[in-house]
Amino acid sequence: MQQTINVLENINSPEDLKKLNLNEMNELAREIRECIIKKVDTIGGHLGPNLGIVEATIAMHYVFNSPVDKIVFDVSHQCYPHKILTGRKEGFINPDLYLKYTGYTAPEESEHDMFKIGHTSTSVSLATGLAKARDIKGEKENIIALIGDGSLSGGEAFEGLDNAATLNSNIIIVVNDNDMSIAVNQGGLYANLKYLRDTNGEGECNFFKTLGFDYYYVNDGNNIQKLIETFEKVKDINHPVVVHITTLKGKGCNLAEQNKEMFHWIMPNTIKNFGQPASKIEDYATTTADFILRKKEEGMPIVAISPATPAVTGFTQEFREKMGQNYVDVGIAEEHAMAFASGLAKNGARPVLGVMSSFVQRAYDQISQDLALNNNPATILVFWGAISGADATHLTCFDIPLISNIPNVVYLAPTNKEEYLKMLEWSTSQNEHTVFIRVPAGKLISSNNKDNTDYSILNKYQVAEKGSKIAILGLGNFFYLAKDVKEKLKQELNIDATLINPKFISGIDKELLNSLKYDHKIVITLEDGILNGGFGEKIASYYGNSDMKVLNYGAEKDFPDRVPLDVLYQRYRLTQELILEDVKACL
Amino acid sequence: MQQTINVLENINSPEDLKKLNLNEMNELAREIRECIIKKVDTIGGHLGPNLGIVEATIAMHYVFNSPVDKIVFDVSHQCYPHKILTGRKEGFINPDLYLKYTGYTAPEESEHDMFKIGHTSTSVSLATGLAKARDIKGEKENIIALIGDGSLSGGEAFEGLDNAATLNSNIIIVVNDNDMSIAVNQGGLYANLKYLRDTNGEGECNFFKTLGFDYYYVNDGNNIQKLIETFEKVKDINHPVVVHITTLKGKGCNLAEQNKEMFHWIMPNTIKNFGQPASKIEDYATTTADFILRKKEEGMPIVAISPATPAVTGFTQEFREKMGQNYVDVGIAEEHAMAFASGLAKNGARPVLGVMSSFVQRAYDQISQDLALNNNPATILVFWGAISGADATHLTCFDIPLISNIPNVVYLAPTNKEEYLKMLEWSTSQNEHTVFIRVPAGKLISSNNKDNTDYSILNKYQVAEKGSKIAILGLGNFFYLAKDVKEKLKQELNIDATLINPKFISGIDKELLNSLKYDHKIVITLEDGILNGGFGEKIASYYGNSDMKVLNYGAEKDFPDRVPLDVLYQRYRLTQELILEDVKACL
Repeated sequence: MQQTINVLENINSPEDLKKLNLNEMNELAREIRECIIKKVDTIGGHLGPNLGIVEATIAMHYVFNSPVDKIVFDVSHQCYPHKILTGRKEGFINPDLYLKYTGYTAPEESEHDMFKIGHTSTSVSLATGLAKARDIKGEKENIIALIGDGSLSGGEAFEGLDNAATLNSNIIIVVNDNDMSIAVNQGGLYANLKYLRDTNGEGECNFFKTLGFDYYYVNDGNNIQKLIETFEKVKDINHPVVVHITTLKGKGCNLAEQNKEMFHWIMPNTIKNFGQPASKIEDYATTTADFILRKKEEGMPIVAISPATPAVTGFTQEFREKMGQNYVDVGIAEEHAMAFASGLAKNGARPVLGVMSSFVQRAYDQISQDLALNNNPATILVFWGAISGADATHLTCFDIPLISNIPNVVYLAPTNKEEYLKMLEWSTSQNEHTVFIRVPAGKLISSNNKDNTDYSILNKYQVAEKGSKIAILGLGNFFYLAKDVKEKLKQELNIDATLINPKFISGIDKELLNSLKYDHKIVITLEDGILNGGFGEKIASYYGNSDMKVLNYGAEKDFPDRVPLDVLYQRYRLTQELILEDVKACL
Repeated sequence: MQQTINVLENINSPEDLKKLNLNEMNELAREIRECIIKKVDTIGGHLGPNLGIVEATIAMHYVFNSPVDKIVFDVSHQCYPHKILTGRKEGFINPDLYLKYTGYTAPEESEHDMFKIGHTSTSVSLATGLAKARDIKGEKENIIALIGDGSLSGGEAFEGLDNAATLNSNIIIVVNDNDMSIAVNQGGLYANLKYLRDTNGEGECNFFKTLGFDYYYVNDGNNIQKLIETFEKVKDINHPVVVHITTLKGKGCNLAEQNKEMFHWIMPNTIKNFGQPASKIEDYATTTADFILRKKEEGMPIVAISPATPAVTGFTQEFREKMGQNYVDVGIAEEHAMAFASGLAKNGARPVLGVMSSFVQRAYDQISQDLALNNNPATILVFWGAISGADATHLTCFDIPLISNIPNVVYLAPTNKEEYLKMLEWSTSQNEHTVFIRVPAGKLISSNNKDNTDYSILNKYQVAEKGSKIAILGLGNFFYLAKDVKEKLKQELNIDATLINPKFISGIDKELLNSLKYDHKIVITLEDGILNGGFGEKIASYYGNSDMKVLNYGAEKDFPDRVPLDVLYQRYRLTQELILEDVKACL
């Protein structure tokens, strides 16, 4: 597919856009859409959100004067049209440059990007700060936050709206209402948005007005002319205003329009290969879902919870239907999800909450106060916890220090399917502990041996292979790297190292660690996450008063941005060879 | 003052309450109030919130059947009347038993307490979990959440309301509207509550209705009869409902009615000594306020921010008036506060946010994503960070692992006034880093020497006294304990230890640590917070491949509940004598 980029050809900044007439802008929208569809189906990325917001982005840049006027994109997963219009179109037209720009706003790329953003519900608060600073300095620019309806359920968005409404000066909140979060919207607020749509914005009982906002409604948020008219009305306004626009998620791509959840974010070639029978692969997500369904069928009052990311955790459409009232998508609301799970556990249900590592950190206080302090027996599954080559906004390496340092929490790290299932069995049947499980990242690994461990005996590490001189603690995902290191030590140094599967991230097996002192000189720890505050440092501290040498391996404290995993592994010395080098220096 | 407890005499459970007539209940309210005032002015505690909620608590226990019906108290700082009515009155009548019960709900004390709660905005989510579990089990009890208007601004409360509204079954949210948070309410929502009060609950534009709640209004929430009538209407209701009641914070104590912020939580004898001229003591709070005011007067676009706890951070009424538009109380909204600070910094203002250690953990994701990832130069002051004998809900020992393991953040630990001021000077004038400062806990200490450190040179520890054999790193508050340990080592072992003031919590001075290897055998770290994930473990890890012995001191991973500080110090071996013992065992 060759793109036709007639109008886009001459657009290198928002200034160029201001010279276009309406017909040209409509053609521009078509061209932008074509670029986005082609690029995203080639390298993957956010499709639906970007297709829906093309016209609104054109209209915003037509009316406002970025970067003097400042636009903050919530989640910034809908910033592709903005990037195309602000000097970065080559990254969307030229396949060789597809990876040049990140999928999120990035101030280092352009003065038109205010913040590096990837988590949800932050735009209103950030924009309120920009606006307040403007007022303090006596300046006059427009401050705009573009937030999707799905993001509105996040507590930070509400806190921001509540404060923004009292600003008494210019702030423009554009609410992009496409009637979808990643999955279908959940929460009482969405009935109000529907009511506002149904009344063409004229209904009295208006969420935004209750907070004190002035309010405008645009019933066709994919109509550039209507958008421009409304944005011109609110430009330079002297008080807080919400512009509620209704758009079509996925617009211009039939498949995305019809399969909104599936086409929110896609892997490469999803459009090309659509309709080909998907081979059902067994993985940790399907294992999770199968376990929960089985327990429900057995009569357990089990409740599966998702904070708006059900697909990741195996909570497919089929799963949701089978679970019925035992499945709850709470919307983007990680804080609520934790407290909700605590309440469920307290009253005798068996909550199992699936959450991604990058987002579990949105609920630290709730994990600590609502769950752990109360020792309520909820099961929280942390998915994708690992060092990865992801965007800096979506790293998944911080959950170990975050969770494992909270008192009372039992944080488990299975290394294969059987351990994972046994841990699930235990955690959903006990009444004493708040249990987190770091679901293994990557492909499902089976040991083909039933795990008979009694996990109610806390902090008991498993000695997988007994050796001497060197002990290797391979936590969770990195148990296999530990095996490789053991092999390397045998090959190169003829040392039979002890291989340990700690299983418990949140506690120390003092008995085992003490016993190692008799015939081991070096303990190596490997964890698939940030070292700082993590597992290995505790081992080092434990041995601090002894002669044991301790080598900790994991990620450095940093926000690497789309750095390939093999580069990171080299940087962090997470290879057999580099670890061998360090061991040799220690002997 | 002798209490008259005629009616209360016979109340040992909610069952007893149900036998009373209205006159007796009114007398009971008076007696409860008398007990609370006397107790709180004797041992300190939450006064205003408890005095305001007496009648509503009586009415709730009269109408509902606790503990089958379940009441969740938000923050639970207004649970004293509830405790008095549920078998724990002795703790409020008998001064010898004043300390028997905690100031918060505690399931280990009574089956009428659902959760251990002390942080804000959690009740609706917790109650929603209880309600959902009830539905799954096919049971029928009432689930009630009692939440104050101040708590409504917290994001978790909104997330909870948004989800609760969709329950499709019984949940009763009692909104106790006394028109106050700890300080005056802040946020657009409060104009709506006022509008609802002004229209006797009949206004169309109703925040709770926008979310889908049924809604009842009680204009005199200190009138037992009216409350009972309304609660009887909503008892066993089959859908989510909000009961909005207007109460008088501090009711029955003139001083508390008239000085709502001051009498929210009081120290012992505040009523007795009211009106005596307060000696203005210079402390870290006044130092903070004075610094900020001076910078404002010098023309710096400095903005002081408080998430609804201004008194703690020195932001007095006088300070607020002098700061004018440069002071912002965002309400209970820690997440917003962080993102707001990021926006301010991005647009050229100089935000200084003061937050308590126990509550900074409500905003981990915002610290990481909104601030640190963007390297926006905000200054965040963490107050009261220390091991303490506080309630388990209000511990202040978790901020070091929470904050210092986030990439990019510079977390500083001053040990005296001069260092603190120099750090403030630096952090509010630089443009590269998000800076957190752990404001020293306890009394102000002055070195009487100007601090000339250049804090832009990161992670440079200060060698306060050069010695050999043993090095002691005394972080922040514990620098003085380190000095004591040094003295002890000299006295008992004739060792001239090296004394180090690390100043940087968030980074390691590798050069210094390496240099210590030449003439030191033992490094001791002391930190006034939890050891797990903290400062000392990083030092242990750093020395893991060397012969250096490392002894880490700090708090164990636990939620101690009102354990006296000297007991904790013994438990954690945080005394000269116990550290000396450990050193001897290591030599």
